[in-house]
Amino acid sequence: MQEKFDQLVQLLNETYNLNAAMAVLGWDQQTYMPPGGAEDRGEQFATLANILHQKVTAPVIGELLQQLTPWAANLDPDSYEVRLLKVTKRQYEREVRVPGEWVSEYARLTTNAHPVWESARKESDFSKFKPYLQKIVEMRRQYADFFKPYDHVYDPLLDEFEPGMKTADVQAIFNQLRPQQVELIHTIAQRPQIDNEFMKLSYPEQGQWDFGVDVITRFGYDWNRGRQDKAAHPFTTNFGIGDVRITTRFLENLLPSAMFSTMHEAGHALYEMGISKEFERTPLATGASLAIHESQSRMWENFVGRSLPFWKFFYPKLQAIFPSQLNGVDMVAFYKAINKVEPSLIRVEADEATYNLHVMLRLELEIGLMEGSIQVENLPQEWNQRMMDYLGITPPNDALGVLQDVHWSGGAIGYFSTYALGNLVAAQLWEVIKQDLPRLEPDMEQGKFDDLLAWLRENIHRHGAKYEPQELVEKITGSKIDPQPYVRYLREKFGTIYSF
Amino acid sequence: MQEKFDQLVQLLNETYNLNAAMAVLGWDQQTYMPPGGAEDRGEQFATLANILHQKVTAPVIGELLQQLTPWAANLDPDSYEVRLLKVTKRQYEREVRVPGEWVSEYARLTTNAHPVWESARKESDFSKFKPYLQKIVEMRRQYADFFKPYDHVYDPLLDEFEPGMKTADVQAIFNQLRPQQVELIHTIAQRPQIDNEFMKLSYPEQGQWDFGVDVITRFGYDWNRGRQDKAAHPFTTNFGIGDVRITTRFLENLLPSAMFSTMHEAGHALYEMGISKEFERTPLATGASLAIHESQSRMWENFVGRSLPFWKFFYPKLQAIFPSQLNGVDMVAFYKAINKVEPSLIRVEADEATYNLHVMLRLELEIGLMEGSIQVENLPQEWNQRMMDYLGITPPNDALGVLQDVHWSGGAIGYFSTYALGNLVAAQLWEVIKQDLPRLEPDMEQGKFDDLLAWLRENIHRHGAKYEPQELVEKITGSKIDPQPYVRYLREKFGTIYSF
Repeated sequence: MQEKFDQLVQLLNETYNLNAAMAVLGWDQQTYMPPGGAEDRGEQFATLANILHQKVTAPVIGELLQQLTPWAANLDPDSYEVRLLKVTKRQYEREVRVPGEWVSEYARLTTNAHPVWESARKESDFSKFKPYLQKIVEMRRQYADFFKPYDHVYDPLLDEFEPGMKTADVQAIFNQLRPQQVELIHTIAQRPQIDNEFMKLSYPEQGQWDFGVDVITRFGYDWNRGRQDKAAHPFTTNFGIGDVRITTRFLENLLPSAMFSTMHEAGHALYEMGISKEFERTPLATGASLAIHESQSRMWENFVGRSLPFWKFFYPKLQAIFPSQLNGVDMVAFYKAINKVEPSLIRVEADEATYNLHVMLRLELEIGLMEGSIQVENLPQEWNQRMMDYLGITPPNDALGVLQDVHWSGGAIGYFSTYALGNLVAAQLWEVIKQDLPRLEPDMEQGKFDDLLAWLRENIHRHGAKYEPQELVEKITGSKIDPQPYVRYLREKFGTIYSF
Repeated sequence: MQEKFDQLVQLLNETYNLNAAMAVLGWDQQTYMPPGGAEDRGEQFATLANILHQKVTAPVIGELLQQLTPWAANLDPDSYEVRLLKVTKRQYEREVRVPGEWVSEYARLTTNAHPVWESARKESDFSKFKPYLQKIVEMRRQYADFFKPYDHVYDPLLDEFEPGMKTADVQAIFNQLRPQQVELIHTIAQRPQIDNEFMKLSYPEQGQWDFGVDVITRFGYDWNRGRQDKAAHPFTTNFGIGDVRITTRFLENLLPSAMFSTMHEAGHALYEMGISKEFERTPLATGASLAIHESQSRMWENFVGRSLPFWKFFYPKLQAIFPSQLNGVDMVAFYKAINKVEPSLIRVEADEATYNLHVMLRLELEIGLMEGSIQVENLPQEWNQRMMDYLGITPPNDALGVLQDVHWSGGAIGYFSTYALGNLVAAQLWEVIKQDLPRLEPDMEQGKFDDLLAWLRENIHRHGAKYEPQELVEKITGSKIDPQPYVRYLREKFGTIYSF
């Protein structure tokens, strides 16, 4: 049986390698590929995706899984072997339900939808994107139907990104969170407002680059196993535990943008770099879910990078790089500026207090679209109505509203809630970390993050995808995903900053 | 039958796309991949190579080729369809003779041999590399045996790189060439020598980069379909006609290195960029052979880049970039310096008059190894003896001798002669070009290369791999590959420079 297990692992290695090759092509596409390469790159992706789908759904995998089931029953349920079989079974059973023709058609649809969305956003013309989104929603419903019976039509979509999580679970969490965040924002709105105009002076790129590199090197980002390049939209990608790359972009007149996005991507990268070598090139060699991944990126970006102890160490360094821009700004003023709460139109630029509301809005719309209670043609009004309800502002046009995010054009309906869940998980973990590491704050004040990284490695990173997200969070914190720690964190932090 | 032809083309597109994906991975490996990514990259290559071998030797290709043969008999023998079938048949029949196990074993052997060669060269210790080279030679003989009966054991190896060319053909050409080149070098050695010491001053990288970019942009290198990056060993690669990339390296204290290597690689790239769109993603979408490819790179590097008309235009520009280094050097002195003839140890640094001798030496050794008349263990002595016979110098160690080139460690026995053949073809073409383009020299003096590029596009580039190399050369010049034009070119050029 060990032989059969090894045979399965070899097949899984192959699909991992194919995925990794596609990731290299994707990285190149977004960093260095010349414009003329786009058409060829599309063809290369199509060929690899086709081969990958065949490999992933090959009957031999199903047979091996079946043959190995009795063998696995006698092993430690927490062993590498049992967990790998479980995750593989889960993936295999999902993949084989989806017909190859559907996969090809959906790939073609979303490939074509992407440039249409781009130009629709550019011209702020939702009507252009509408027919594509209608077709995407329709195909996403077909996708859900491959998984009948389900509790909720949105469940199979969510499950793709957040294994084991149900729509009802997320709704329960968000229903608890929403009124508390809305109330917090209203409280803050009545306090004296913070000045952050100095962030919009000219900050030359090289200085921003050097500062970001210094920060993430101290976080523990391993340059021997990674690199940073520029891309239009920052992302992290990896082609193995030994090659985990990040990208960033620089806005000369918006200092926080590259700075926090670099820390964010480094947070994702540290996760992938910390996965146990034992899991290498198997389905366990990835994060537990998108929410857990996001808990890591948001922790380094916000719980660390937007904290006072962090800036006690780094602010003098930043001032030394940008003396003329920052010498008149003291550390506390800087700290407040990077934490200014302000209802805004764009999710990716939102502060910690308003961010989740952007996500909840999208989840409600997605569920409505899938249930059929919201029609694609009414999406702009539905969007704008919720922006007013939650944040008290109305987008002046659809480019700054319903068209702002890329996800739907790529077919990723089911993805958004993981962003907010990641924030919640980060707060839950942070409460445990603060107990486990009494020297956390003094260490940060000295630019030391070794113990924090070691804790994350031990408790999260090394496990890769061995545990489902809820299981992992419960294992560490004693409870499943829970919004209260995040609410406590926000109240404490912003209560101090805004004196309420 | 058109339907069957389209089916075949689709299969060929798939293998092209897989090859292109591997090329992207190779490009990344040599430009940006962090050290930690090496192991994963090896695994990705292994998976893709394995899939590729299966696709290339799939019985369905053989069946389609057979079914299409009678159909093709009624078509124009010079048509796209007939030529594509011919090239595909040729490749298929070669690939299916080689067992999959041999391919895997050889891939593993050469993957392992590469780092051994690297450290052997570093320590100048041939004995380390010897067992690997012995095994490589042995497997290369097995490879040849898959193609029995053959006229010469070296034929199947040469044929891999130079379709249709026989060992006897190359030997006949080289036997004619060798004494004439040796004589020329002796003549030059008796003339007053050229000073090129100023080439070894400090030339900062950015200036070298800018100059190279200016030159190849004027050659016609299309930045919309390409880019230049730095790599330890310069190379050209492409992932389609729309994405043809070059790399270069900079030696601060050796001005000619990056300059001529950039022109050389741009010559390769212009070829790939000029292939007819009709051939896209088929086996015709590549150069006719390595020799024809090298004729393009060497033409831009030497016939153009080391010519007096070229420097009439570019030398003032180069002086403007490096005023302190070059203001005391007039154009003719510079022109002579970049053409200094001097027997030297390293092939890649050799001048035009000595270069081919380095290649001939390798061909003789490779043929001897394959015939069994030379043993691997005697290779250093055999190498050094020939260096003395042809160039009058002896390598002080094996790093500067038998271990200098990477090719054998990668298993590429059969490759070297294409470098010399490329020089010969370039000279043959150049004689025709000079007749066809009376304004060639005055155009170069003005930095104009449009007509030259158009000529190459029309006569060579657009045809891709449609014609075999000898066929193509004969079509253009009226004769097969012939050493005399190159000898004439050398005599005229160096007769003027060295006044004999």
